[in-house]
Amino acid sequence: MNRRNFLIAGGIALASVGEMTAQMQTSKADCIFCKIVAGTAPAFKLWEDKHFLAFLDNKPIMPGHTLIVPKVHHSYLFDMSKDEYKGIFERVRILEPPLLSTMNARRIGLLVEGFGVDHVHVHMIPLTDRGQIQQKGRADVTQEEFQALAEKIRPAMNKK
Amino acid sequence: MNRRNFLIAGGIALASVGEMTAQMQTSKADCIFCKIVAGTAPAFKLWEDKHFLAFLDNKPIMPGHTLIVPKVHHSYLFDMSKDEYKGIFERVRILEPPLLSTMNARRIGLLVEGFGVDHVHVHMIPLTDRGQIQQKGRADVTQEEFQALAEKIRPAMNKK
Repeated sequence: MNRRNFLIAGGIALASVGEMTAQMQTSKADCIFCKIVAGTAPAFKLWEDKHFLAFLDNKPIMPGHTLIVPKVHHSYLFDMSKDEYKGIFERVRILEPPLLSTMNARRIGLLVEGFGVDHVHVHMIPLTDRGQIQQKGRADVTQEEFQALAEKIRPAMNKK
Repeated sequence: MNRRNFLIAGGIALASVGEMTAQMQTSKADCIFCKIVAGTAPAFKLWEDKHFLAFLDNKPIMPGHTLIVPKVHHSYLFDMSKDEYKGIFERVRILEPPLLSTMNARRIGLLVEGFGVDHVHVHMIPLTDRGQIQQKGRADVTQEEFQALAEKIRPAMNKK
């Protein structure tokens, strides 16, 4: 039995297979950030365009700690194409002024490590003083606190 | 007395004033990174082009911890022009493969904070495991160790 007939016999419509294949190329089933992009896992989303999504880090080093991720799954920042790499830092630059001003920060620090979640993410961290960027993230932020932060940052990031 | 005559009366040649003004716009007298760029302060330089310089961090979080700086003085990453900002991350991308391979790292992590030295710098940190990027820098690395690292990394970064 060839692959086509095997799939039909298995009750899987070819259109769906096509979609699944496309899906497999761009997202990973067990990746939490792919699920956030797809809307099947919760996150306090702040901003998005066709290729990138920004949302609040769930263990913030500082209030307003934001992650920006490509919508397509990549494991390592430097595995992305030249255009995708350029694109993520362009978006970081676009999102910096509204994050800085709404959080009353002195600077937005950047951090890229990526051993935690295996999907490229650039941390954008509102800072007021030296050393803060190397603190551990807080796990005790309530949903209400995240909600209030998101409602404060989101309008500034989406102002035309 | 107009400005030109005032300057001549003050014994300052106009050519020098022009140079001084240009100098003031591009470097800061008390900035250690401007001095490194100018060659008047020591550093283990790894790579440079017309606009950017990479050298070893003198308090490395991990061996091979590299800084890349614009040659022109800027205090904050996001104060740079769009082209300069794009340019520094383009260079980071160019320098990542030789740094990764010579240091046998799993990833090159990035960190931008900037409360230490007030001259834009992107940290490129060879990482083998989670959490390393948040360690404190080591102050006990010897000149010989730095020299050996520079001699290992420099040829890879400058290979045509």
